[in-house]
Amino acid sequence: MNKTVEYYFDFGSPAAYLASTQLPALAAQTGAAVLWRPMLLGGVFVATGNASPASVPAKGKYIFRDFARFAKRYGVPLKTNPFFPINTITLMRIAVGLQLRQDARFADYCSAMYRAIWVDAQNMNDPATVAAVLQAGGFDAPALLALAAEPEVKNQLKALTEEAVARGVFGAPTFFVGEQMFWGQDRLDFVREALTA
Amino acid sequence: MNKTVEYYFDFGSPAAYLASTQLPALAAQTGAAVLWRPMLLGGVFVATGNASPASVPAKGKYIFRDFARFAKRYGVPLKTNPFFPINTITLMRIAVGLQLRQDARFADYCSAMYRAIWVDAQNMNDPATVAAVLQAGGFDAPALLALAAEPEVKNQLKALTEEAVARGVFGAPTFFVGEQMFWGQDRLDFVREALTA
Repeated sequence: MNKTVEYYFDFGSPAAYLASTQLPALAAQTGAAVLWRPMLLGGVFVATGNASPASVPAKGKYIFRDFARFAKRYGVPLKTNPFFPINTITLMRIAVGLQLRQDARFADYCSAMYRAIWVDAQNMNDPATVAAVLQAGGFDAPALLALAAEPEVKNQLKALTEEAVARGVFGAPTFFVGEQMFWGQDRLDFVREALTA
Repeated sequence: MNKTVEYYFDFGSPAAYLASTQLPALAAQTGAAVLWRPMLLGGVFVATGNASPASVPAKGKYIFRDFARFAKRYGVPLKTNPFFPINTITLMRIAVGLQLRQDARFADYCSAMYRAIWVDAQNMNDPATVAAVLQAGGFDAPALLALAAEPEVKNQLKALTEEAVARGVFGAPTFFVGEQMFWGQDRLDFVREALTA
């Protein structure tokens, strides 16, 4: 069997981060390949009329407690980022650029971005901090920032985001197993069921 | 031990309905008492700035598939109600009135309302349908509608809804175990953990 789960993500989403911590085990348990699909969550929100849970104060206050509960259950670190929301457009463009050129460090890069935002609570809105995080991860920061500025890369992130919306995506993370869509890091059990059905 | 879980609900919420189907097993497994807390979800939305998931078309389309998946997992019936959203103010007032007078048929009434909306997909926006459903359930429809019109009952639903909002509620169902809040029928596993901790 040739099973695949698509994982639509944006580094700015704590739920997408939580999901990312569970993907290696999911892949190991199901034998499925995980296809990482970068998208710009802000673009998805604009296109669908959806908004961050944080846009409703009571929901925003609750949702981080909910994420903390899952982090505890998963046994993974999670910090509230005081600079949330993070404008991730450059970070997501770099992800797209690395994927386009089939760079072997794509997974390392994604881990580093999630860690910077949701474990180390760095201010990734600040270009100097982004450059420092990239350098600390052994990446060539100027080269990656130049990659993010390439028209092909910019267009590809736009196209991927539009494709996500066309498929029904309205939040992050979103998974597809074939045409079955699952929204939320709290639906990984259903994703697992779909992959083992 | 004297354990209690508070269950804030509105009959108009399919998620609250799904949760209601799991409460007997939760109570049996944990030995906890379930306190049913009526609220007017529309009032909660106005007070908190939250909105039904159906207000975002892509989310509304998805969320009923999500509910259907849980209904299948739980082994309980669920129909999409073509008259959604249902204005539940009278139905919730009756629930409050029955609770205020400690009527032994409170639970039967709640089951009948959930069934009418989410199993039989009845148009509970229509007063004649409401009366017919009440009569079919062995309730005295005119008496219950009169109960719903009592100022004490109206004020109590308002007070319960305001209390819910003051405690941080922004959607349905919401559970409290002590001061720990849990939102969503998909958080019953966390509620169970909190009750058995």
